[in-house]
Amino acid sequence: MELSVEKTSSGREYKVKDMSQADFGRMELDLAEVEMPGLISCRTEFGAAQPLKGARITGSLHMTIQTAVLIETLTALGAEVRWCSCNIFSTQDHAAAAIARDSAAVFAWKGETLAEYWWCTERALEWGPDGGPDLIVDDGGDATLLIHEGVKAEIEYEKTGALPDPSSTTNQEFQIVLSLLRDGLKEDPKKYHRMKERLVGVSEETTTGVKRLYQMMENGTLLFPAINVNDSVTKSKFDNLYGCRHSLPDGLMRATDIMLAGKSAVVCGYGDVGKGCASALKAAGARVAITEIDPICALQACMEGFAVERLEDVVGTTDIFVTTTGNKDIIMVSDMRKMKNNAIVCNIGHFDNEIDMLGLETYPGVKKITIKPQTDRWVFPETGSGIIILAEGRLMNLGCATGHPSFVMSCSFTNQVIAQLELWNERNSGKYEKKVYVLPKHLDEKVAALHLEKLGAKLTKLTSEQADYISVPVEGPYKPTHYRY
Amino acid sequence: MELSVEKTSSGREYKVKDMSQADFGRMELDLAEVEMPGLISCRTEFGAAQPLKGARITGSLHMTIQTAVLIETLTALGAEVRWCSCNIFSTQDHAAAAIARDSAAVFAWKGETLAEYWWCTERALEWGPDGGPDLIVDDGGDATLLIHEGVKAEIEYEKTGALPDPSSTTNQEFQIVLSLLRDGLKEDPKKYHRMKERLVGVSEETTTGVKRLYQMMENGTLLFPAINVNDSVTKSKFDNLYGCRHSLPDGLMRATDIMLAGKSAVVCGYGDVGKGCASALKAAGARVAITEIDPICALQACMEGFAVERLEDVVGTTDIFVTTTGNKDIIMVSDMRKMKNNAIVCNIGHFDNEIDMLGLETYPGVKKITIKPQTDRWVFPETGSGIIILAEGRLMNLGCATGHPSFVMSCSFTNQVIAQLELWNERNSGKYEKKVYVLPKHLDEKVAALHLEKLGAKLTKLTSEQADYISVPVEGPYKPTHYRY
Amino acid sequence: MELSVEKTSSGREYKVKDMSQADFGRMELDLAEVEMPGLISCRTEFGAAQPLKGARITGSLHMTIQTAVLIETLTALGAEVRWCSCNIFSTQDHAAAAIARDSAAVFAWKGETLAEYWWCTERALEWGPDGGPDLIVDDGGDATLLIHEGVKAEIEYEKTGALPDPSSTTNQEFQIVLSLLRDGLKEDPKKYHRMKERLVGVSEETTTGVKRLYQMMENGTLLFPAINVNDSVTKSKFDNLYGCRHSLPDGLMRATDIMLAGKSAVVCGYGDVGKGCASALKAAGARVAITEIDPICALQACMEGFAVERLEDVVGTTDIFVTTTGNKDIIMVSDMRKMKNNAIVCNIGHFDNEIDMLGLETYPGVKKITIKPQTDRWVFPETGSGIIILAEGRLMNLGCATGHPSFVMSCSFTNQVIAQLELWNERNSGKYEKKVYVLPKHLDEKVAALHLEKLGAKLTKLTSEQADYISVPVEGPYKPTHYRY
Amino acid sequence: MELSVEKTSSGREYKVKDMSQADFGRMELDLAEVEMPGLISCRTEFGAAQPLKGARITGSLHMTIQTAVLIETLTALGAEVRWCSCNIFSTQDHAAAAIARDSAAVFAWKGETLAEYWWCTERALEWGPDGGPDLIVDDGGDATLLIHEGVKAEIEYEKTGALPDPSSTTNQEFQIVLSLLRDGLKEDPKKYHRMKERLVGVSEETTTGVKRLYQMMENGTLLFPAINVNDSVTKSKFDNLYGCRHSLPDGLMRATDIMLAGKSAVVCGYGDVGKGCASALKAAGARVAITEIDPICALQACMEGFAVERLEDVVGTTDIFVTTTGNKDIIMVSDMRKMKNNAIVCNIGHFDNEIDMLGLETYPGVKKITIKPQTDRWVFPETGSGIIILAEGRLMNLGCATGHPSFVMSCSFTNQVIAQLELWNERNSGKYEKKVYVLPKHLDEKVAALHLEKLGAKLTKLTSEQADYISVPVEGPYKPTHYRY
Repeated sequence: MELSVEKTSSGREYKVKDMSQADFGRMELDLAEVEMPGLISCRTEFGAAQPLKGARITGSLHMTIQTAVLIETLTALGAEVRWCSCNIFSTQDHAAAAIARDSAAVFAWKGETLAEYWWCTERALEWGPDGGPDLIVDDGGDATLLIHEGVKAEIEYEKTGALPDPSSTTNQEFQIVLSLLRDGLKEDPKKYHRMKERLVGVSEETTTGVKRLYQMMENGTLLFPAINVNDSVTKSKFDNLYGCRHSLPDGLMRATDIMLAGKSAVVCGYGDVGKGCASALKAAGARVAITEIDPICALQACMEGFAVERLEDVVGTTDIFVTTTGNKDIIMVSDMRKMKNNAIVCNIGHFDNEIDMLGLETYPGVKKITIKPQTDRWVFPETGSGIIILAEGRLMNLGCATGHPSFVMSCSFTNQVIAQLELWNERNSGKYEKKVYVLPKHLDEKVAALHLEKLGAKLTKLTSEQADYISVPVEGPYKPTHYRY
Repeated sequence: MELSVEKTSSGREYKVKDMSQADFGRMELDLAEVEMPGLISCRTEFGAAQPLKGARITGSLHMTIQTAVLIETLTALGAEVRWCSCNIFSTQDHAAAAIARDSAAVFAWKGETLAEYWWCTERALEWGPDGGPDLIVDDGGDATLLIHEGVKAEIEYEKTGALPDPSSTTNQEFQIVLSLLRDGLKEDPKKYHRMKERLVGVSEETTTGVKRLYQMMENGTLLFPAINVNDSVTKSKFDNLYGCRHSLPDGLMRATDIMLAGKSAVVCGYGDVGKGCASALKAAGARVAITEIDPICALQACMEGFAVERLEDVVGTTDIFVTTTGNKDIIMVSDMRKMKNNAIVCNIGHFDNEIDMLGLETYPGVKKITIKPQTDRWVFPETGSGIIILAEGRLMNLGCATGHPSFVMSCSFTNQVIAQLELWNERNSGKYEKKVYVLPKHLDEKVAALHLEKLGAKLTKLTSEQADYISVPVEGPYKPTHYRY
Repeated sequence: MELSVEKTSSGREYKVKDMSQADFGRMELDLAEVEMPGLISCRTEFGAAQPLKGARITGSLHMTIQTAVLIETLTALGAEVRWCSCNIFSTQDHAAAAIARDSAAVFAWKGETLAEYWWCTERALEWGPDGGPDLIVDDGGDATLLIHEGVKAEIEYEKTGALPDPSSTTNQEFQIVLSLLRDGLKEDPKKYHRMKERLVGVSEETTTGVKRLYQMMENGTLLFPAINVNDSVTKSKFDNLYGCRHSLPDGLMRATDIMLAGKSAVVCGYGDVGKGCASALKAAGARVAITEIDPICALQACMEGFAVERLEDVVGTTDIFVTTTGNKDIIMVSDMRKMKNNAIVCNIGHFDNEIDMLGLETYPGVKKITIKPQTDRWVFPETGSGIIILAEGRLMNLGCATGHPSFVMSCSFTNQVIAQLELWNERNSGKYEKKVYVLPKHLDEKVAALHLEKLGAKLTKLTSEQADYISVPVEGPYKPTHYRY
Repeated sequence: MELSVEKTSSGREYKVKDMSQADFGRMELDLAEVEMPGLISCRTEFGAAQPLKGARITGSLHMTIQTAVLIETLTALGAEVRWCSCNIFSTQDHAAAAIARDSAAVFAWKGETLAEYWWCTERALEWGPDGGPDLIVDDGGDATLLIHEGVKAEIEYEKTGALPDPSSTTNQEFQIVLSLLRDGLKEDPKKYHRMKERLVGVSEETTTGVKRLYQMMENGTLLFPAINVNDSVTKSKFDNLYGCRHSLPDGLMRATDIMLAGKSAVVCGYGDVGKGCASALKAAGARVAITEIDPICALQACMEGFAVERLEDVVGTTDIFVTTTGNKDIIMVSDMRKMKNNAIVCNIGHFDNEIDMLGLETYPGVKKITIKPQTDRWVFPETGSGIIILAEGRLMNLGCATGHPSFVMSCSFTNQVIAQLELWNERNSGKYEKKVYVLPKHLDEKVAALHLEKLGAKLTKLTSEQADYISVPVEGPYKPTHYRY
C-alpha cells in the first residue's frame, strides 16, 4: 500500500478519488441543503456567534452528500474539521471532492481496502504534534476504538515493552488495527495519550457504536464523555426507521432492478431498521417474513401482518434476505447453499458479520461473478445455482445506493451538531463525566420542530390551562423520559 | 336515586342490568378465552399454587367480556374480587351478568348516571367492617382517587369538623364525589383510613391514571405503592395502538354505518392511541389530518403521510373528528358550529372533557336528537345543520362498540395479573414503597411470548456466542430500558 | 306457515317485523340521505317532471336503509312501489317499517324462513288482477326467476295439465318455489303470462343475477329486456370492491369481536368482492392468502403481496375463511373438520352454497351452539373442536352487520334509478329487445360525477385542444368501452 | 450529423454506444432471464419448431435488458430482427451492445438527438432492396407512423411531384420526420410502398400507440393489421400499474435522492399508470393529490384516500409533480413559475408534451443547470427559484432509472411474442384485416399462468360441476370479455 496525503492550493490535506468531481458534488450539496432544514437553521441561529471557534473536530462517518452538509455546518459554526468514512463502500466521491476542495480535510473514497480504511481513520485523527481532535463525530465507533486501543497499547508498551501482535487475533480487520498501532508505537509512544488528554468528547451516531460505548462505561474503560445521538428520538425513530424504509428498496433496485411485487422476503430483526425495511418491502407488494429473538418485537411484527418465522423454515423459498440485527452470524454459508437460484442476500446493519462472508469466500469451489460493483453472483459448485450478494455483505443502502435521503439525515445530523455544541460549551464545566449521555428531550423536540415547516406541518399550541391539566410546560418538553413514541 | 345491592343464591352481592343475560355472557366468555392466551397461561402456570389466596381485589375497569376473563383469572389464582366499571357506557351487560352469577361481586351496567357510577365504585370498595381491598386494579384512577379524597376529607373532618362541600367546585362529577364522601363521613369517619392501611397497592391500566399517580408521587401524597401497567411495552404499544386501530372503525361503523373511504378525518393527537386511529382511518380510505402539540409526534405523522394541521384550518371541511389527546378542551362548541352538516365528533380518550360537551349541552336553542343509544344528532338553531356526537363524548369504542378485542386485551391484562401477583408476593418485603413502578422488562417480554404461539409465530433463539456479542443473556431481557420499540 | 298481509291506515299493504321501529328507521333514513348524493340529485333533477308516473315497480333487493332511500327516490319520481328482500337475513326491520308506513308496500323482515321469503317475493309481484309490475329492480334474480318459472309452469300446465312437482328436485329452496307455483296454478293458470305481458323490463343489481340473465339470453328464454346494472363501472368497481372492503370487517367485528391483526385469513376468490375483502383484512393486520382458479386474478393477488394457495394446504392453519366466488362448493364440511378450533367461516357472495351448510348440518353428531343471532358455533363430535359460522353461510355483511354503507350504495342505486328511467322512457320505442344491456358510458360517468362534490373532489376540465388530441368529446365519455378502470 | 452503420465480424449491422459493454449486458441478461418466466417458457414451448423461421421483425421499443430478452426469444423462435429504441433516453447501452454483438441488428443509444432517433428508426426498417420487415413490434407507434407517412408522401410525390415540406409544421420532431422522408424520396420513391406490401402486421405495446391505431382504423387509413397488446389484461393491468408502481420511485430516487416520506405530490391522471404512481408515492409516505378529467377515475381516487384537486389549487404547495395522462399540455411553464423552489417535475407518460418543455426552454432568461444527465435544475430569472426537470420531460422511469423490472415486462413481452406468432401464423389465412385486434382471453390467461410458478402461487382447479354451475370451461377462459379485473 502506497498512500500519500495530498494538499489543496491552500495547504489543506486530503486524499479522495477524483478532485474533478468537486463541481458535481457542489451541485448536489446545493440541492441537499434545501432538504436539510435543521442543519441550515443551525447555521442561521448559531453561525454569527461562531460557537465552535477553536474546536478541532474529527469525523468518522459515511462521507456522503448529507455528511458534507453536516461538515459545512460545523465549519460554518467555526470548527476546523478532518474527516474519514466509517465504511469502505459508503463514500460518495463527488461529495468527498467538494468538501476536500472547499471546506475540510477529507480522507475517503468508495471502495477502500480495509488497510486503506484504517489509514484514512488515522489521518483524520492526525492534527499535528499538539495532540488530536477536541471532538469526535463517530459512527460505529471506529475512531473511538482506535484511540482506546491506542492508549491500551501504549500503556502495555510502557509497562512491558510489548508491541501489539496482529497474530494474536483471527479477526482480519483487527489484525490491521494492531499492525497500525504497532507501527505507530515505535515512532511515537504517547500519541494516543496526548489525544485522550485533549479530547472533550465524542458524539456517536449509531446503535452499534452506542452499544460499544455503554460496554466501556460499564467496564469503566471509557476515556472521555460520550453523547449517544442514536437514541435521540429524532434519530433512531426517524433515520433508522424511515431512512431504511427509503434506502432499502433504493439499494435493491439500483443493484438488481428486481421487481419486489410478488416476491417473498425475509427481514432478520424487527428493530427500528427492520421495521423500516419490512414496511418498505410490504408496501412494494412483497410477502414478508420476519425473524426475531425478542418476543415483544416479534409480537409487533405479528400485529403488522408479518409472518414470524425461523430462517431455516423459509430459507429455500425466499427471494430476498435482509439482515438488520446488529448481531453476527445471522445468515451462514450453510443457509446460502439452500437458497433459490439468484436469491438476493444483503445486510443493512452496520457491520458485515451479519452475513457469513468469510464462510462464503472460503467455500470450496465457490465462484464469484461480479455483475457490477457491489453486485456479485456467487455460484456453488454442487448445484451451479447462485445467489446475489450486495455490497459484499456490508451496508447495502450505502454500498448500492446513496444511503438515507437528505431530509431524514438532517434530523440525525442536527442532533450531532447540537451534541457537539453541548460538549464544547460544557468542556470546562464538569457537566459531562466519562459516561454516555442522551440529549435532553427539549433539544430532541427542537430538532423535530426545525423540520416541520419544510413539510408544511402546522403545530397546535397548548393553552396554559391545557398545559397545567397535563402538567407540562406550554413550550415543552411534552413527554416523560420513558415515553416510547 | 334508589339503588340497592342484590345477592346471588350463594350470597354474593351484585347490581347488574339483567341477570338473564348470564348464559349469553358465558358463551362469549368461552370464545374470548380462546383469544386470550396470556391469561389462560397464567391460570395454567399459577392456578394450582393459588398465589392470590386471601387477597381481596377491587377492580374499577370497563366491565366487558375481556375484563370478565381477567376477573376469572384472578379468582382462579385464589383471589376474592369486587368490580365496577370505570366508564358509564362501557359495561357489557351480559359480561357483568355472567361474572355476577358465577365469579365475583359486580356493580356495573351500561348507561349509568354519574351518581350511579360513583355508587358502584363505592360498592366495589366495600369489603365489610375490617377495611377495604388488599389490591386495586384501576383504570383511569377513580378507585384510587376516591380513597385519596376520602382520606383527605377524613383528616380535614377530624381536624376541623368540616364536611366536604359539593358547592366548592363547578365540576359536576366532582360534586357527586364530594356529596358521597360527605354522606359517608357522618356514618363512618375512618373508613378510608382503614382502607389505606390495609391496601397493598394498585396496578393502573391507562395513561390518564398513570399521569395522576406520578403527580401524586411528585407531590408526596401517594398513599400506597402503584404499578404502572400502562407503560409496559406489551400494554401501551399494543392495546393503545392496535386496540384502537381495531375499535375506532368498529365504533364508527356500529354507531353511524358511515363509509370511511373518501371521507376526510381529523385525529387530534398522535400518541399511541392517535397512531392507531389515524392508521385505521387511512387504511379504510379516508384522508386523514393530524393535530399535534408535540413536534416529534408531528414529524412522525408527516413521515407516515399525514397532513399536520391546526383544527381551525380544517374544521369546516372535515367529515370525522376523533380526539385522542388525554388533554381537555380539544374540540369546543365554537368549533362544532363551523362543522359540515352531519360531521361526526367522537372521543376515544379516557375522559369526556376532550370534547366540550358542556358547551354543547348549554348552547342556546341546540336540539339533541337521539338516533339510537350513544348516537345523537345535535342541531344548531341558526343553521339547522347538525353534528353527530358518539357516546356523549365519552370513550366511543366502548360506548358504541365493544372496545378493544380480546387478543390485545390479553396482553394488557396479563400485565395486570403479573402486577397484582408482584404486589401481593412482595406485600411484606418492603420492595415497593409509596411510589410508581414499571414492571421489569423480562416480565414484559414474557407477556409477549405468551401470545406468539396463538398467532403461529416462531421465535429464533440466540446462540450463546451471539448473546455475548450483543451483551444480553440468551434468555433475555434483550433490550435496554430506554429502548422505544 | 300462517302469514297475512297487513294494511296501513291509507290502505297500503305490508308485512314487516315491527311497525313501531318506523321512527327510528326514518331518523336513519335522514342520515343516509346526506350520504347518498346521487339519489338525492335524481330527486332534484327529475322529481318535478314525475317521469315514473304510472309505473308500478316491484323490487327484490335487501330491504335496508339504503334501499329505503332508493325506494323513496323511485316514488319521488312518480312510481308506485312494492318491495321484498332478496336474502332472508338482510332486512333492516326499522328501514322496512319506515317505508311500509310512509312510502311503499313492503314484505320483509330479518330472519325469514325460506318459505316466508318466497311468500314475500310473491306478494311484491302481486299488483292485483290486471297483471304485475311494469318494472322490476332485482338483486340475484329471484323475482325474475319466479316469473320465468311461473311462465314455464303455466305453459306446461296448459299443454299437459302437469303441475310443478317439488319432489323433482333435491334443492330445498327450489322445492319451495315449485310448491308455491303449484298452489298458485290451480287458482290462476295465467298469472305469470299476464305479468310477462305487462313487464317493460328488469334492472339487475348483482353478478349472480346478471350471470343468470346472460344464460337466459343465450338460451333464448329471456322474457323481457334487462339492464345489467352490476357491470356499470360505478357499480361493480365500487359497491363490490369498496363496499365489501368496508362491510367485511364490519360483519366480522359485530359477529365475533375478533382481533384481525395477527390472524391468518383465506379469501376464496379474487374478483372485485375478493379484492375488497383481502384488502380490508390486510389493512387490519391479518396475513391473507387467496385461492383462485383464474390465473390473471391470481397474478393480481401476487402483485398485491398476497400468497396464492390451495385451500387444502392452509385449511388447518387459518383463522378466518371468507368465500367471495359466486361459485358453489368452495368450503366443504370435510374442510371444516380440519380447521383450528373457533376458526371463523363466512360467505360474502350472494348465495349460501359457497359454504357446504347442508354437509355441516347433516354431519353425524355435530352440535350447533347459537352464540347470538347469525353467529353459531358448530362443534364436531370427534374433536370437541368447533368452528364459527356467520349468518348461516349467507351474505355475512348483511346478516351480521348492515351491509354496504350508504355512500357506495348511492352509486349502485343511482344506476338503478337511471336504468329504471331508461326502461320506462323507452317502453314503446323498441330500443330494448329481450336482451341484456349495459348502461352507456356517459351515464356511468354521470353517476360518478354526482358523487364527487360530497367528497370535496374537484374535476379538471379538458380544453378543446386536449380533447381533440386524445379524440374524446370535452364532456366525455372519456374512455373506450373496453377500458377496465 | 455524421452517422454510419457499423458491422460485427459476422457482418450484422449495428450502431451502439460502446460495444465493450456487451459482457456486462450479457450478465444482466442472464439475471433477467430468471425473472422472465413467460419468455423463457415461449422458448421452451416453441423453440424447437422455429415458428418464426423466415420472418423479418423490426422492433421500435426501448432497447433495455428486458427488451433484449424479448429479442432473443424472437430469434430463438427463428426470426431475424432489427431494432431501435422508441425514446431517446431509454436505451441501456450494455443491453444494446450485448444484442448487437450476439443476436440482432441494433441502432440505439442512451441520449440520442431527435435526428439520430429517426435515423435509427429508419435503419431498423431497412431490410434491403426487397422491402422492409414482415412484422413490427412497436411502442408508441413511431415505426408504424413512419411507414404511414412514407406511403402518404410517396403517393403525393407520384401524383404531384411535391416533396414533404418540413416548414409546413411547427412541431420540431415532425419537421425531422418530413426532412427524412423528403431526402429518402429522391433516392427511392417506392420504398414505403414496398414495405407496406410486405408487412404482415404490427403488434403495439402501449396506450399512446394503440390510440393512434384506432384513429387510423376509424379513418380507414390503417395500412396493415394490428394487434393491440396494450389492452391485454396481462399488459395494461400489470406493466402500466405495477411496473410504474416500481419504476416511478426508482426514477425519483436515482435522479434526485429525495425523501418521499412527508412530501406532497400531485399525480396528473388516474388511469393504470397514475394508479401505480399514486400508490407508490402513498406507500412511501407522501401525501398525494390526483388531477383527473374523468369522474369515474376521480371517484376511484377518492375511494383510495387521495385528494382530487385541480393543478392550479396545489401548484404552489406541492413538492413532486408526475404526469401520467397520455394527453398534452398538462403542466405549463406558467404553472412551473408558481412552484416551490426545487419542486420536481416529471413525466411517466409516453410523449414529452405532457410537460410544456418548449415553454420552459424558451422562457426569457431561464437558466438550465445540469446536475447530472437527465436531472436538470431550471432557474427562473425573476425569483432565482428553480425546479428540477427529470429526463427532459420524457419517460422518467426509463430516462432516470431502468424502466419497469423484468418480471412485469415478461408479462407484456410474452403477449408480444404471442401476437407476433399469431400474425405470422395467420399471414395467409385472411383472419386479420386492416383493423386493430385484441388477443383472445385464453391467451391472456395463459400469459398469466406462465408467471405464477415463479412466485410460488398455486392455482385451484374447478371441478366440472363448478365449471357448469358458472358456465365456463374447466380450462377457461373464466371471464366474459367485458370483465374489468
